[in-house]
Amino acid sequence: MTEMTETTPGWLSPDELESTRARMPILYVDAVPVRVDEAGTVTRVGLLLRIGADGTVSRALVSGRVLHHERVRDALIRHLEKDLGPTALPNIPASPQPFTIAEYFPTQGVTPYHDPRQHAVSLAYVVPVAGDCRPRQDALDLVWFTPEEASSPLVQQEMLGGQGTLLKQALAYVGCLS
Amino acid sequence: MTEMTETTPGWLSPDELESTRARMPILYVDAVPVRVDEAGTVTRVGLLLRIGADGTVSRALVSGRVLHHERVRDALIRHLEKDLGPTALPNIPASPQPFTIAEYFPTQGVTPYHDPRQHAVSLAYVVPVAGDCRPRQDALDLVWFTPEEASSPLVQQEMLGGQGTLLKQALAYVGCLS
Amino acid sequence: MTEMTETTPGWLSPDELESTRARMPILYVDAVPVRVDEAGTVTRVGLLLRIGADGTVSRALVSGRVLHHERVRDALIRHLEKDLGPTALPNIPASPQPFTIAEYFPTQGVTPYHDPRQHAVSLAYVVPVAGDCRPRQDALDLVWFTPEEASSPLVQQEMLGGQGTLLKQALAYVGCLS
Amino acid sequence: MTEMTETTPGWLSPDELESTRARMPILYVDAVPVRVDEAGTVTRVGLLLRIGADGTVSRALVSGRVLHHERVRDALIRHLEKDLGPTALPNIPASPQPFTIAEYFPTQGVTPYHDPRQHAVSLAYVVPVAGDCRPRQDALDLVWFTPEEASSPLVQQEMLGGQGTLLKQALAYVGCLS
Repeated sequence: MTEMTETTPGWLSPDELESTRARMPILYVDAVPVRVDEAGTVTRVGLLLRIGADGTVSRALVSGRVLHHERVRDALIRHLEKDLGPTALPNIPASPQPFTIAEYFPTQGVTPYHDPRQHAVSLAYVVPVAGDCRPRQDALDLVWFTPEEASSPLVQQEMLGGQGTLLKQALAYVGCLS
Repeated sequence: MTEMTETTPGWLSPDELESTRARMPILYVDAVPVRVDEAGTVTRVGLLLRIGADGTVSRALVSGRVLHHERVRDALIRHLEKDLGPTALPNIPASPQPFTIAEYFPTQGVTPYHDPRQHAVSLAYVVPVAGDCRPRQDALDLVWFTPEEASSPLVQQEMLGGQGTLLKQALAYVGCLS
Repeated sequence: MTEMTETTPGWLSPDELESTRARMPILYVDAVPVRVDEAGTVTRVGLLLRIGADGTVSRALVSGRVLHHERVRDALIRHLEKDLGPTALPNIPASPQPFTIAEYFPTQGVTPYHDPRQHAVSLAYVVPVAGDCRPRQDALDLVWFTPEEASSPLVQQEMLGGQGTLLKQALAYVGCLS
Repeated sequence: MTEMTETTPGWLSPDELESTRARMPILYVDAVPVRVDEAGTVTRVGLLLRIGADGTVSRALVSGRVLHHERVRDALIRHLEKDLGPTALPNIPASPQPFTIAEYFPTQGVTPYHDPRQHAVSLAYVVPVAGDCRPRQDALDLVWFTPEEASSPLVQQEMLGGQGTLLKQALAYVGCLS
């Protein structure tokens, strides 16, 4: 579903994307949406709530492909708007330096990150959002957690493909990992 | 003058500060105020205009001491408010990781940074400001430059103590150094 | 030529690579080889010397694609060995955080980086090398410059596709941009 | 004890240091010693073993003051040599950008970091060490842990003043926090 909205003339058809995924690392962005106070301190972390085809509940970061001829900043904005709605008012960082690179491998165990569909290399950013978030598309809800809750086993076990680890890296980066 | 406003009971008197400066590195923060567009790209850099006792004009970053029992974030906010006024709406970065550490030595040539008064070690941040800036205290004006202008010889030669170099490091960090 | 050595069964044929390049951002790594002293200060920057088909001389960073199912660290090591020889003893940084992301667009002017062949997104690292460097493949030589020389107009004008800017960003990151 | 070795003419006497500590933030460096493999991946983290006056065992990072007119890099080298011995061969990072700033407050709860003696602001670095480590001074031993062990509750509870949190931030920075 997600890929359909990204397929426009000049880009990859679903078949071509499938074929390319078996041959090339695919460039992604991951965004950790946060609420900050006036001093810039992170007070809440936003996680998308999804329900899988088999009914399992999971929590996810904002994540998606960078398209051909699209800037990384614009990919971030596009995925944030797609997942959080048009009134989220994301505050894209001024520096292109990501806090880490998450390498999702189709084989488990190579890195902490795993994506059965593909080898995806993701530039990960913490993105303060100031506005009203209304999840769209395949997300049921966006839930705001305190940093403590976000790194707790309860939340961590609901995150897939190593995104729980990526979330803890984000919390460490903003100085909120306890 | 600047120090007077910082001297409250429990902190250092001017004499004590003088004496301490000869014995200890003094912790500073440097902030590079910037304007950003919706994608987070830096479009302008703000520099304070100062006139010295001898009439020489110089351009400066927002800069100042961190006080005892003051958090770095709060020192950043205090100095930004002191230099840009109360309506600047600074956007303090969510991560405490500075883009660099500027080591100002009282002896010239040890590092690119020089402060004849003291050995100051400064945590340097790029700070987007969204509001209206009205320089106060000893600054005459705040002038917004394009990244190209900010790294030009004309502006660079008006900056003292190595702050021109620090400004270029900030531009490199936000991907705007040409 | 470079691509031929990277084409093994399961990866892309030259034709497929050509086709993919027109549809997807291609993941790259850029490495800035440096010499450091015992305190970690950068004393020299290494640039490859290349001669184009038309006889023009250019200076280049170590740069290349990340392959399918290859870790970013391993891509860095592979390209450093390919360009600097097997005895360079590169010191790959412990953190996957690059100092910047360089977005090379096939269209000029979108970013400071340009690659007429493709949209490449490159993770850029500073890599200290301790050993003996013997350039191989299509590089004639590796020349070590002081940081001052590396950012001088003379060297900068010999660098293509925005790599001069990337080099200055690397110098800023290590605190050696004057 | 530690401070005595740092007191040379022109620096602070113990009394002066005591007095200054009550008035100014004191600049520190924290180093997380690590072993890395050829690809730069962290395989072990080194922690100092200390026994307190009351017999309690604790684990600690390499940590200490930056002196007047001392560069941050030189302070890192001095403290690493003091704690790990002269043959540790530390590999000081080429960039002055620390992975985080740890603000140790004399009051508990302001930040995750606490130092009852003083308000210390510490620049924190991950430092690969390649040589033979022989702890000196007040450390009994240096023990190498896997990243998993280092972030386990067992090791974390033996670390004081929030250094367990700082260690986890270091592991997150090098991509080894599970």
